[in-house]
Amino acid sequence: MIDLIEMGKKAQSASFDLGQLGTNEKNNALLKMADSLIANTKNIIIENKKDIENAKNNGIAKAMIDRLMLDEDRILGMAEGLRQVVALPDPIGRIDRGWTTTAGLDIVQERVPLGVIGMIYEARPNVTVDAAGLCFKAGNAVILRGGKEAINSNIVLADTLRNALKEIGITENAVQLVSDTSHEIANEMMQLTDYIDVLIPRGSGKFIKMVVNKAKVPIIETGAGNCHIYVDKDADLDKALPIIINAKVQRPSVCNAAEKVVLHKDIAEKFLPKLYQALKDNNVQVRGDERAVKIVSDIIPATEDDWYTEYNDYIIAVKVVDNLDEAIKHINKYNTKHSESIITENYAASRQFMKQIDAAVVYANASTRFTDGNEFGFGAEIGISTQKLHARGPMGANELTTTKYLVQGDGQIRE
Amino acid sequence: MIDLIEMGKKAQSASFDLGQLGTNEKNNALLKMADSLIANTKNIIIENKKDIENAKNNGIAKAMIDRLMLDEDRILGMAEGLRQVVALPDPIGRIDRGWTTTAGLDIVQERVPLGVIGMIYEARPNVTVDAAGLCFKAGNAVILRGGKEAINSNIVLADTLRNALKEIGITENAVQLVSDTSHEIANEMMQLTDYIDVLIPRGSGKFIKMVVNKAKVPIIETGAGNCHIYVDKDADLDKALPIIINAKVQRPSVCNAAEKVVLHKDIAEKFLPKLYQALKDNNVQVRGDERAVKIVSDIIPATEDDWYTEYNDYIIAVKVVDNLDEAIKHINKYNTKHSESIITENYAASRQFMKQIDAAVVYANASTRFTDGNEFGFGAEIGISTQKLHARGPMGANELTTTKYLVQGDGQIRE
Repeated sequence: MIDLIEMGKKAQSASFDLGQLGTNEKNNALLKMADSLIANTKNIIIENKKDIENAKNNGIAKAMIDRLMLDEDRILGMAEGLRQVVALPDPIGRIDRGWTTTAGLDIVQERVPLGVIGMIYEARPNVTVDAAGLCFKAGNAVILRGGKEAINSNIVLADTLRNALKEIGITENAVQLVSDTSHEIANEMMQLTDYIDVLIPRGSGKFIKMVVNKAKVPIIETGAGNCHIYVDKDADLDKALPIIINAKVQRPSVCNAAEKVVLHKDIAEKFLPKLYQALKDNNVQVRGDERAVKIVSDIIPATEDDWYTEYNDYIIAVKVVDNLDEAIKHINKYNTKHSESIITENYAASRQFMKQIDAAVVYANASTRFTDGNEFGFGAEIGISTQKLHARGPMGANELTTTKYLVQGDGQIRE
Repeated sequence: MIDLIEMGKKAQSASFDLGQLGTNEKNNALLKMADSLIANTKNIIIENKKDIENAKNNGIAKAMIDRLMLDEDRILGMAEGLRQVVALPDPIGRIDRGWTTTAGLDIVQERVPLGVIGMIYEARPNVTVDAAGLCFKAGNAVILRGGKEAINSNIVLADTLRNALKEIGITENAVQLVSDTSHEIANEMMQLTDYIDVLIPRGSGKFIKMVVNKAKVPIIETGAGNCHIYVDKDADLDKALPIIINAKVQRPSVCNAAEKVVLHKDIAEKFLPKLYQALKDNNVQVRGDERAVKIVSDIIPATEDDWYTEYNDYIIAVKVVDNLDEAIKHINKYNTKHSESIITENYAASRQFMKQIDAAVVYANASTRFTDGNEFGFGAEIGISTQKLHARGPMGANELTTTKYLVQGDGQIRE
């Protein structure tokens, strides 16, 4: 039996200790964790093979099994991720602002760790290492609860990291894994408000929605991406085509893949047939509004539902608009506030789009696929926040902090 | 019948318009709102009298009625609050950071409004004006839902602000009041995730807990304050005494009032009798642990429950500790992470206390009563956050913002 409250107490105690560590101590520990992963490669692969065997026996899809699989390269990759986190600036101790009040109090607002972070996630075992590394860099203790498909891998990875910490004289309770993968334990974890400061769910949209609905612990919502690419009348169409293809097909299952194309009417007739062909060549099914179907009759008529849907698949829907204002209105209505891109060479159009689109990341002339902690330069990423509270967009170590006001006086009382 | 969804749509549309306003346009509108309040003084007092009458008929306590009451001075005060908000820097459009990625993308992280803010609050009608002013300054539309005790006052105040906006040519839907004070409407508002970005409850601890439990809209929790003052062995006792008295009795019902005193054993015997007498002179009931009772036998023995309790009353509990470490451990165990203060002339002790105490605001040699938006210099305040996500401590206009990443490229696709 897992005692989550006991784990919560250990995490709180560890979080106090982590809050006292200097940057070098934390970085040395992260390097030690990276070395330990590599040194433990053989063992990790043995444990991972058990998960792969179970997955095969349970008839899990090949693509899923590939995501589960750890080999020497992938373990090196995880270690490299930890080393990148070392190279990032330490957010802790940074002073955001400081001033003196009318009463003569000196106030500084300092970045401090959040405390204890809970991660509930599905499938890929690398999340175990990425999350542990980023949480540790920001001085947080983490309680990890991965899915049952990766349980053997997660246990050996967490043990490896914990042993590395122990060897270097830092409390191993900075990283704890919940080895029980039952729903009951997950539910209990979502209610652990006395011990977990923030809960971050990672996985499918359905999974995240379930956690958001059940949890009492404050949540950072990640995930859903109904991303648009708008091709303006002044677009360089030689840029537009590869950007749309990249955003759609490079990895269609992820949240920053493009799901919709919005075309200005002035370029639609010239551009859409080429775009349709290129998408077809990449096995993408194209749906569209009436005007799109009028231009390319093979396009499947889209329903109102299509505009809301995140396909996560080789499907895209095309909408033709009269002007930029209509494009912005359409995108702001149907998007999930994740990532949107305008393709244009027009200064005023790019400025208006970036100002008026409501999303975590707004692009001019680039693929939406760049919304990613690594691409942003955050080392690993803990997830991509699609909410407006606390953090928005890719979250790195910086987003795993809060602030504390330190106020110095010399006897002030309030009038 | 109130149509909350219709109000939500109007708020969203207004929030888009507010996002396009410049600082001067917003400041002029705030000044206009301030002038309109003063110009409408007579009318506001007439409507407020209805609330006062109702309160008297319903046998509501005198202290509550006083908080409800609006006179010329208080209306001037609300207008003055709006003018202070004008004088604050505009958080919108500020660039938090910017860099160029490996792929050659230029990223800036810009401060933008949260969007639509919901406020659910009890009693005092000035919250209507304070919240509207701060939300507006940060470019947010606000939906206000005050308590039934102040409904006539809230309606006339919201109408005054809306008319001021209309006169100056800004959408009056920037400020909307839910004139139905039923629980059903409040519940519906808490589930309005499609239209409200953030919900901020203000009121009693019980009220806030209820909202936190029921709401599906992301919440910023405000309120609970079990604040401690630790008197170190190296304290200047001439500072300690007035600070404790101020923090306890200046306004015992508020969240930043002191509820506990922690005394270093070396000064306890000398200091506690004086402190006890001063508290008694101020009609404060003193409870304490065994060691405190041993020093002053009139002190009432405290139970375990006492250490957790926010009295909001003329009661305080005293704990005697062996050293600073024990004091910190005690405070971190029982506090609500609101405001804590150390009284000491010792450099190392103040440094350790400020570093190791987990709270929104940590003081050296000052009263906890300064944890307040006005005292911090934020003009009005929207509440004091006691959570770690998004905002911590007093919240002004700055805390009513989020960020958006703006990414400029020239055709980048992801490898």
